[in-house]
Amino acid sequence: MDRTLNLALATTLHETSFDEAVDLTRNALSAQGFGVLTDIDMKATLKEKLGEDIEDVRILGACNPSLAHRAVDVNRQIALLLPCNVVVRRDTTADGTIIVEAMDPDLMVRVTGEPALEPIAAEAAVRLRAALESLHDR
Amino acid sequence: MDRTLNLALATTLHETSFDEAVDLTRNALSAQGFGVLTDIDMKATLKEKLGEDIEDVRILGACNPSLAHRAVDVNRQIALLLPCNVVVRRDTTADGTIIVEAMDPDLMVRVTGEPALEPIAAEAAVRLRAALESLHDR
Repeated sequence: MDRTLNLALATTLHETSFDEAVDLTRNALSAQGFGVLTDIDMKATLKEKLGEDIEDVRILGACNPSLAHRAVDVNRQIALLLPCNVVVRRDTTADGTIIVEAMDPDLMVRVTGEPALEPIAAEAAVRLRAALESLHDR
Repeated sequence: MDRTLNLALATTLHETSFDEAVDLTRNALSAQGFGVLTDIDMKATLKEKLGEDIEDVRILGACNPSLAHRAVDVNRQIALLLPCNVVVRRDTTADGTIIVEAMDPDLMVRVTGEPALEPIAAEAAVRLRAALESLHDR
């Protein structure tokens, strides 16, 4: 089902618990200047609201204040794509594997066609890639 | 600066305070089956982190659990675009006007090219439009 879409920067973690993967992701984001403003436990939410069971999925809302400020300075509507979601989820097809995906900031440029957002999205992508690589290399 | 992008469903409110506009928006979303899972005060965040002043901007993370479940069932990566952001912000160009914008759910279809998301995005759009119209007509 899970085709690879063109909207994520991604890495995988092994030999870690799910909760530890979430903590490691938060720390890696912090080291790149992203605070986590929101944290949605999607598994718990769907269980509570619908009684449905899915695997562990957490949606972290990551925000680098300086980049966010520059982005909304270009166009206030970009707030519709903030904060930048980073999803940590269990890979149901590979035991013990946890997937960490960040929304590719280039999406902001693609959907708006706003050239002034390009350098901001590029810097955000560099920082998010560095965060994901630090998880993979640890 | 604020060109109209093709990523928002939007309406405007008049003769209301900003806080009241946020409450009205939450109620309108609730009436259409959307809970607000996250609420970011962007003005306060940028003031606290950077000392920068912007007008009132709140980012509400709206989630209709049933639609969210159907969407992640199609593709887990869609979690990168959940919850659906609804931004309430003061219009700096028109005194006393408050803009309410929801991310157009069709964006999910456009960025993924996933036909199975189309009916889900369409239903989400109908509900979000109804919420915005109820604000405008009140």
